Amino acid sequence: MMVQAPDEPGVLHALTGVFLDHEANITHVDIAERREGLTTVYFELEDVAGDAVDVLLSDLQALPVVRAAERAPSFQKVYGKRIIVVGGGAQVGQVVVGAVAEADRHNIRGEKISVDTIPLVGEEELAAATRAVARLPRAVALVLAGALMGGEVTRAVHEIREKGIIVLSLNMPGSVAEAADLVVSDPVQCGVMAVMAVSDSALFDITRQRGQKY
Amino acid sequence: MMVQAPDEPGVLHALTGVFLDHEANITHVDIAERREGLTTVYFELEDVAGDAVDVLLSDLQALPVVRAAERAPSFQKVYGKRIIVVGGGAQVGQVVVGAVAEADRHNIRGEKISVDTIPLVGEEELAAATRAVARLPRAVALVLAGALMGGEVTRAVHEIREKGIIVLSLNMPGSVAEAADLVVSDPVQCGVMAVMAVSDSALFDITRQRGQKY
Repeated sequence: MMVQAPDEPGVLHALTGVFLDHEANITHVDIAERREGLTTVYFELEDVAGDAVDVLLSDLQALPVVRAAERAPSFQKVYGKRIIVVGGGAQVGQVVVGAVAEADRHNIRGEKISVDTIPLVGEEELAAATRAVARLPRAVALVLAGALMGGEVTRAVHEIREKGIIVLSLNMPGSVAEAADLVVSDPVQCGVMAVMAVSDSALFDITRQRGQKY
Repeated sequence: MMVQAPDEPGVLHALTGVFLDHEANITHVDIAERREGLTTVYFELEDVAGDAVDVLLSDLQALPVVRAAERAPSFQKVYGKRIIVVGGGAQVGQVVVGAVAEADRHNIRGEKISVDTIPLVGEEELAAATRAVARLPRAVALVLAGALMGGEVTRAVHEIREKGIIVLSLNMPGSVAEAADLVVSDPVQCGVMAVMAVSDSALFDITRQRGQKY
């Protein structure tokens, strides 16, 4: 659901008090918009049955701070799973071409897979972007699309794999390729395989591909 | 900052109570991770000076529900502004090639621009994805990369432009091209121009390009 309220301290505390009254668990929250002194906050909830949502919306609308509260479609439904592509130079674009073409083929049959790219260089920035994947909503896989990565980036890869993120790497110098689930030399193929690894409909089991190089 | 706590109703209400005590305004919040009964919530705050952050972290750590609370780098700093590319078929990948190559050139000089793509077809799904751009954190521009879009998608374009999102469209049949800020025929060029339109360093002023077709 979407809630509009003044952009000031205490608003999120007031809204979440209503959810607590209903014993609703918040599974997603983000502040979608802040302008002209108003903020729009977006929530996804679990443990709330159909009719209870209407009561919950009325209770929200009854709060003095709330300007509007209504149902909204979930990001999971609209944008689905996210594959994150990180790296620089000529290869990053080619990884994305492969991933977007393959995601198009899956999405046209009803799946929802997004391909999110940040072109970056430098060990520190790559490591920060890698670590942040584990806390990006709906992110399930990372593709490292560069020509030399290691050190702190490799440590970050180990950390996010521990948290359940699938990591694919181009075949490149540096220790990162050894830390990844799967290494693919051709960037277009690497993008395609990232989508196959997270798709519900592909006959591709990442657990059977771990440690492989293509 | 990052806070780890049990994944149960009432946690966000308890955490935001501490922010309210400090009169801190929450500018970003998301639930980064949910597994094994624990949830990790990520906050960005304003109106909190340097030393006050440490007191705020201690107050959070003192809550019975909190397992860990620490500073974390902001997504704005790591991933920056987001350009969203929506569409299907051969062109969507070519738009992304242009946008990623141009973002690489800007990011290597210190900017942070991401290019996030969802391959999609169908009026209803395209309209939902277009509307959702206005509530995606850090999203500043949308590129419509298809060969026929109109109807509900066009209405969604008008809505998000009202909310400050820049919209670029490929030159295509359907009413969407007339609703966009800028129309570009070549998909690679369209991706490049989307990055130029949102970049801090490019000498490209979207307000002087509105209604143009290239």
